[in-house]
Amino acid sequence: MKKQNIKMDKLPTVRRLPDYLFILQELAAKGEAYVSSSYLAEKMGIIAILVRKDIELLRVTGTPRVGYPIELLIKRIENFLGWEASMDAFLFGVGQLGNSILANRDLMNLGLRIVAAFDNDPGKISSSVHGVPVFDISRLKELMAKHDIGMAILCVPAENAQDLCDELVACGIRGIWNFTSARLAVPENVIIQKEDPAIGYAVLSARLTRMQASESRQNIGDNKRALNG
Amino acid sequence: MKKQNIKMDKLPTVRRLPDYLFILQELAAKGEAYVSSSYLAEKMGIIAILVRKDIELLRVTGTPRVGYPIELLIKRIENFLGWEASMDAFLFGVGQLGNSILANRDLMNLGLRIVAAFDNDPGKISSSVHGVPVFDISRLKELMAKHDIGMAILCVPAENAQDLCDELVACGIRGIWNFTSARLAVPENVIIQKEDPAIGYAVLSARLTRMQASESRQNIGDNKRALNG
Repeated sequence: MKKQNIKMDKLPTVRRLPDYLFILQELAAKGEAYVSSSYLAEKMGIIAILVRKDIELLRVTGTPRVGYPIELLIKRIENFLGWEASMDAFLFGVGQLGNSILANRDLMNLGLRIVAAFDNDPGKISSSVHGVPVFDISRLKELMAKHDIGMAILCVPAENAQDLCDELVACGIRGIWNFTSARLAVPENVIIQKEDPAIGYAVLSARLTRMQASESRQNIGDNKRALNG
Repeated sequence: MKKQNIKMDKLPTVRRLPDYLFILQELAAKGEAYVSSSYLAEKMGIIAILVRKDIELLRVTGTPRVGYPIELLIKRIENFLGWEASMDAFLFGVGQLGNSILANRDLMNLGLRIVAAFDNDPGKISSSVHGVPVFDISRLKELMAKHDIGMAILCVPAENAQDLCDELVACGIRGIWNFTSARLAVPENVIIQKEDPAIGYAVLSARLTRMQASESRQNIGDNKRALNG
């Protein structure tokens, strides 16, 4: 199976780019022209070496005692993410999760334009949710032809996700943002991004477990010292 | 600033563990005892070398032509994530996002028990959402004393997040799952996991951008060959 062009070891950097972008845009709005890696590290809660490595990927070089040029960093991040232009998307499944995505102003500010939503609930069809019209899925092909859709956002029940995914792929969709718990099979020229709260829960759990283990080791050490002292 | 004990380069592995767990539990339910790295690679959509590296982290060794023992893999993953026991949590902010988390059966199946929710809307307080009672935030301390809470889930408006976070830290919360767009400052003995749809959007955008760039390079190549041929 052919793999995507971003190497796995670059993914943590890509995941940090939206946060960098936000911090840099705040600085630019304040009229700042340069930023240090230590400032970014402090704001991001990571070490400065990691910041410098991330910026290396963007091919921006800093000047000693001056810092990195903010406008160029912003431009390179937007360029890296393809965020210079806005992206038109369809959303599928206007339940609680779909609703919260339609209401998400942060995503709109980053250039995501959800131009239509689809649902199979007759009570929702022909209505408009957070300004986005809701259509019956039977109108998918017709509406695909009218728009240049770069991405489909899946918020349907997991058991319907693969069928919908197959239909979307047949319609020529190349990017699928999967908010369902379903593991979707797609051809290799289609890109899937799975959002799964279980992942964040796993990372937080693993970190808490390690912190507790390291603290209890520390306590045992303290107790031993207290006994010996 | 002291950093967490999981090295940054291990994070992609940790992020894949819930998916491994799901696949392994499905196999166990079918009565399977062993699994190959190539089967897991196929199911996960990653290369087998990566699967073998992930499993190395769990310190499970496979047998050639037999595979890895499924029950041991499950046990080691649960152990790594601290998922042998359930985790009690409080949720803050019962809006659309909070609602969708309270309704999430996958998280419950992984052992997350949201024992109480908090909101400042009098219409929500004293009600119950997906079986979870909703309280006024003024009752936080009292309820903290009654439960062994391992994690707070933040779904409040971003502008209220830091104040709430400070209050939670003062109450002794050590793990914060931040679903708001706020970048929260916490002491170094508190762990924050930020869920931000902008991150998934960034990764998907970056992959789509690279796929399009590589395809257009290919097309230019094809056209050149066509011209020369």
